This record gives sequence, C-alpha cells and structure tokens, in this order.
Amino acid sequence: MTGPLFTLSTDFGAGSGYPAQMKAVLLAAHPDARIVDVTHDIPAFDVLSGALLLEACLPWFPREAIHVAVVDPGVGTPRRALCVVDGEGRRFLAPDNGLLTPFLARGARAHAVVEGGVLATPRSATFHGRDLFCPAAAYLARGGTPAALGPAVAEPVRLEWPTAEVAGDEVRGTTLARDPFGNLVTSIRAADLASAAVRAASAGGEAARWVRTFGEARPGELLALVGSGGRVEIAVREGSAAERLRAVRGVPVRLVLGPAGGAC
Amino acid sequence: MTGPLFTLSTDFGAGSGYPAQMKAVLLAAHPDARIVDVTHDIPAFDVLSGALLLEACLPWFPREAIHVAVVDPGVGTPRRALCVVDGEGRRFLAPDNGLLTPFLARGARAHAVVEGGVLATPRSATFHGRDLFCPAAAYLARGGTPAALGPAVAEPVRLEWPTAEVAGDEVRGTTLARDPFGNLVTSIRAADLASAAVRAASAGGEAARWVRTFGEARPGELLALVGSGGRVEIAVREGSAAERLRAVRGVPVRLVLGPAGGAC
Amino acid sequence: MTGPLFTLSTDFGAGSGYPAQMKAVLLAAHPDARIVDVTHDIPAFDVLSGALLLEACLPWFPREAIHVAVVDPGVGTPRRALCVVDGEGRRFLAPDNGLLTPFLARGARAHAVVEGGVLATPRSATFHGRDLFCPAAAYLARGGTPAALGPAVAEPVRLEWPTAEVAGDEVRGTTLARDPFGNLVTSIRAADLASAAVRAASAGGEAARWVRTFGEARPGELLALVGSGGRVEIAVREGSAAERLRAVRGVPVRLVLGPAGGAC
Repeated sequence: MTGPLFTLSTDFGAGSGYPAQMKAVLLAAHPDARIVDVTHDIPAFDVLSGALLLEACLPWFPREAIHVAVVDPGVGTPRRALCVVDGEGRRFLAPDNGLLTPFLARGARAHAVVEGGVLATPRSATFHGRDLFCPAAAYLARGGTPAALGPAVAEPVRLEWPTAEVAGDEVRGTTLARDPFGNLVTSIRAADLASAAVRAASAGGEAARWVRTFGEARPGELLALVGSGGRVEIAVREGSAAERLRAVRGVPVRLVLGPAGGAC
Repeated sequence: MTGPLFTLSTDFGAGSGYPAQMKAVLLAAHPDARIVDVTHDIPAFDVLSGALLLEACLPWFPREAIHVAVVDPGVGTPRRALCVVDGEGRRFLAPDNGLLTPFLARGARAHAVVEGGVLATPRSATFHGRDLFCPAAAYLARGGTPAALGPAVAEPVRLEWPTAEVAGDEVRGTTLARDPFGNLVTSIRAADLASAAVRAASAGGEAARWVRTFGEARPGELLALVGSGGRVEIAVREGSAAERLRAVRGVPVRLVLGPAGGAC
Repeated sequence: MTGPLFTLSTDFGAGSGYPAQMKAVLLAAHPDARIVDVTHDIPAFDVLSGALLLEACLPWFPREAIHVAVVDPGVGTPRRALCVVDGEGRRFLAPDNGLLTPFLARGARAHAVVEGGVLATPRSATFHGRDLFCPAAAYLARGGTPAALGPAVAEPVRLEWPTAEVAGDEVRGTTLARDPFGNLVTSIRAADLASAAVRAASAGGEAARWVRTFGEARPGELLALVGSGGRVEIAVREGSAAERLRAVRGVPVRLVLGPAGGAC
C-alpha cells in the first residue's frame, strides 16, 4: 500500500528552499507521501512556459497523482486559487492565471480554493504554494472533495496562445518556449500534420531539415521534428536553436506537407 | 509505518553527484528512508546564507526529521563535527562552523561527532557529508544517541550576524542574503515590528513601497514586506532587488513605524 | 518491504521536465519505486564526463539498485541500447556509446535492449530515456532478465581515456572533467600512487600544494589531493581550479613521489 502521489511544478528554483517547505507540509500531513519534482525551473513568472511544460509532463503520471503547480506573480492579490479536476479525473491545484490551460478542456471542473474554509488561513501572504496549495492537495489526498474547498468557478482563466494554421499543403506556426538544450517548442502539434509527410521546413526564414530524430541531422544543423511532447520542435543537433535563432518566442515556423515518403 | 525522514542541505550543487552519494549511504543503511533535498545551492562556502536558509526551511518539517547540513570549507581540518538536538527535540548533523546558529538557542545540546567511534573512520578526508555526517544520521535513525557519537560540546560555534536596531519609531537593519528571485532577506524579523504598521520603508537610501504581498506593487517597483520566512525582505515585483541594488549583503534598510492603518 | 530502487543520471537538466517524465513511467510501473536523481547536469552530450560521474557515484548505492543513465547524442539512430550487468551484479541501462565504460570490465555482460520485444515500441524517436530505458528498468524490477531484452552484445562501446603514466618516481596524467566547485578530476587514480607519499605536484606547469584536505591549503592556493571519488583532483581552496587554469580537460598533471612522510 503506497501513500498519495504529489507532483510539484514551480518557478521557485529547486535550491531556493521553497519547494522543500512545500514538501515538509505534505510530509507532515502524509508521512507516506510520494513527491515528484516536475520542475522548479519554469522561467520566473512565465505562465505560458509553465503551461506548456505541464502539458508535456503531467499526462505521464498515474491518474491518481495530485498536481501542485505554482507560477504566481499575483500571489496575495484577489486572483483566485483553483482546484481543477480534468475530464480524465486528474486533480490540480494552481493559481487561476491560465497555468492549467492545457487541462481545462473536455469536461474539466474547477473550484476556488477559499482561504479559511476547510483549510487554515495562509500564514503568509506571499507563499501560497506552502500555505494554501499544498494544504489543499493534502486535503484532497485525505479524501476531501474539490467542492469542499470552495465554490465552483465557471470560467477559469485560460491563456490564449497561437495554434497552427493549415492552408493547403502548408502549416504555419510559431515558437512558444524552449527547453534547457535550447530546443524550441512550437504551436504546431503532431496532430496538425495528420499523417502527412513533411517535404520542407523553415524557422525564421531559415531552412530546417525535417527529421525523425536528432541523429539524422549533422551536428550544428538546424532541424525540425516531432518532439517527445507531441509538438513540432525546432532544434540544432548538439547545439541550441534558441541561440541560433536568437529568440525563444515568436519565430515563424513553416512546414510544407507532401506525399508520404517524399524527399524533405 | 514509514521509514526515517532525512533532509539534506549543502552547497554541493544538486547535479554534482555528491548529494546522490549521501543518499546512497542513507539508503544502504535504511532502505525505507525518506530523503528530502532542502537545497544544494547554498552559495559555495557561505555559512551565513546557509544558516538563514535552514532557519527558514527546517522548522516546517516534522519534528522527527534528521537534518544533515554541510557547508564545510574546513572539512578535514580539526574543526569539529556536531550533532545538535535543539530545544524542540529536532536533530541536526553539521560541521561546527555556525551553520546551525538558528537552532543553538533555547536549550539546545551539542555533541561532537568523533571519527572512529561508533562510526567507521571516514573513507575520505574531503567528503564528510558522505563519510561522517550521513553515517551519523543513519546511526541516530537506528536509535543511536547523540551522546554515543562523541563528547558534549559546551560552546558550539555561533555566527554573529546583525540584528535589527529599534529606536523610537524607527527600525534599522541590513540585507543578509538573497533568494533565486533576487529578493533580499534582512536582519529585521517580523517580531521586531511587534504589531505596528509600517509607514515608510527604504533600502540603500531608495524608498521602497511597504506591502503585504508582491501584487500590491507595480511591476519593477522596489518594495518591502514580511517574507514567508518571517523576516522583512526587500524585493522588486517581477524583478530582482539584488540586481536593482547591486548588492546582496550590507544594504542598509530603514522602516518607520506608525499607527496601524496609517498610509505608507 | 521496500520497492525497487532506481537511479537516474542524465544531461537533461533537472528542471527540464524530462527526468519527471522518466519518474512518471517508473512510478506507473512500480508505485512503490524509490528513485534517486544522481545528476541531470552532465554537460550536454559529454559522454566522458558522464562516465566519470557514474564511476564516482554509482558504486555507493546498494547493489540491487537499477541504474538508468542517458547521455545520448545518437538517440533514434542505429546506436544500440544496452542493458549491462557488471561483475558485481549491478544493473545498468544506457545507450551503447561508452557511458558505462567504468562498469564494463571484470566480468560484465551486455545485452541489447531491442525495441518492440518485451517492451512496447518507443512512442518517440527522441526520448528513449522515457520510452525505452525506463520501461526496460521497470521490466528488470519486475523480475525480467537482461537476456529477454535482446541479444548479447559481445563488444559494447568503450571510451578510451588517458590513464596515468608512472616512470620512476614520477606520475604523469591529465585533467578529465570538473565538478561544480571547479575541482578538476584527473586521469591519476589513488591506486596509481600505491602508498607512496607525494613530494611535489603541478598542474599546467604551475606548482600545486599536495594536501590531504582542502583546509590544509591557503584560500586561493592551487592544490592537489586524492578526491572523494578515488582520483587525484586539482583544486583551489575556496575557488575554482577550472577558472584558474582556464581549462577543464587536457591540463597536464605531474606528481613526484617520495618516501612516506617526506616534505611536499
């Protein structure tokens, strides 16, 4: 019999001591808690990058995991705190600022997490990760219900971010975020390509070699591929596309589709 | 029934492999150990920054946790190794260099951790975290007593660091350390303000807006608040006070107290 | 009764989200898994640095641990995936690129990890850590055998790296890698010194003080010692030898041996 599984995703920095305080609160409530750090390196206050990272990572966890995510420039202001249960029954605690956008579609339900309800009033006005979200996660793990945390929220904040535009044999998108290698995640999802082959690719006007994996490109070559998170990525083999293109967000990406098996 | 709970705090770098070796030693002794990284990013050899981080983090853990803390420029020299039990029964292993200063008040007892006693002689002269402190922590978790580790230490090393000066309606202090956001922790504790309101604040001669939480300031504005660790902090909303003030330690901070509810 | 013990060593960056996805896969297969991050900060694509870090860290873990190591510039190409059992029964999963060199001596056996055999076909061509190596590790932890993962590999890739040259009373070597403090690990192993004392040491032509521990040198002094990983290291007390010598790899190191107890 294993204890409850929690994941933590923040922009606090792993070594800041803030994630450790969150874990202390979870372990005080659930001595047998299993706690996984998804990331504490989301770029500070960058809700969109955080949302994309959650989209790529959280679906891999067992469905019973309780996910705490905190990128929270508005902590202490009237921004709401949310408990979301998505269409597949996954549970999330996060500020209501769009961080959970990838999980708000398809039958998600959201409740506010109200201070001073079933939870104690937060001890600080600046660290709701420790004082509100983790106590709420611990409460759910004890069998508490989202509805007991606060009233239903009909319209949680959703981020709008570019999606791919498909026109004829062309798919256009834009870069959205980077990973530590400097690979750039784009607004084009694998599903946007249907099962068509890609004949040509470019990023920022520069030709990129369309490959299945990094090793098919030459070291230093600009390339494009379907990344492990299900989005088209722009990369440089054994290098950094972010440095090469001198940008992270907003680089136009263009793919030309062709018959399967066609040359790139 | 859960295993013993250990925390690790070092200046080794999380990815250096040194924390992993410490965990290996703990897991070899206690296969069911629960191990939490508090931080491995204490600035190298910076005992004061380490002590402040321990002060902010360790009290949140369940009292039975055994805390191993290593910032140890004197490893291998005659500096003593310590086992401390503080007034609340919390247990700590650390070099005797002041790192445990926040826990040495109010009824703490300290014992030396002697090489070659109940513990094996360290295999290296340079890595007591792995070869002395973790074996000592594992020994305590098996029910061993601090007194068995070595003789009592009457006067463990304490760091002297600035405290707040209160004069009339003015509280003066200084910045001591930073967090990854660039927020600056000061020598002024929440308790120094009693329950008085703060009418005005400044850091390095520059006016700072006194707020309850970051979101009450404008992005880029210098602000002061009671931080989540119980100390007054100087910060910049969505920015770095350390960069703004071009300093981490020694920036003079001044607060003017006034009647509760007064304007800032 | 504790769950299986896994270690992870990669060049992905701890906060990239990639290690978290690997943990999710392990926890989905083994809810009671114990997972230790050895490092996610191996310099990108630097197989030699990774191998040296594994050499220093992995032997400290209990023998039943299953070690997953991924530095994989060739992911998705025909480079093989390996399952290695070393002469002491330790189990490793890694790409066949030399990363496991320290464990390939003395009776090691290697098997290929074949896609689509007992394991599902990888869902991505770029992230075998998540889609191939962790599923293979989970399979071993369920009692699966290396032979079931794929055919035996007679000649796994081994890195050649410099070893020490001993001539008369002189031992010559070279720096190989650095740690986060800037300490430089060399090609000279403690065993190369037998039990002889060291009379003089130099690195890059500069005299280095031979010490037993950092505290015996003056702050800022270049020093040489036997490091905690069993190799001679070049360091600067409370400083960085990598910065001082402006290099990480290839700095010539020279030790002069003398009668035990002789002056340095």
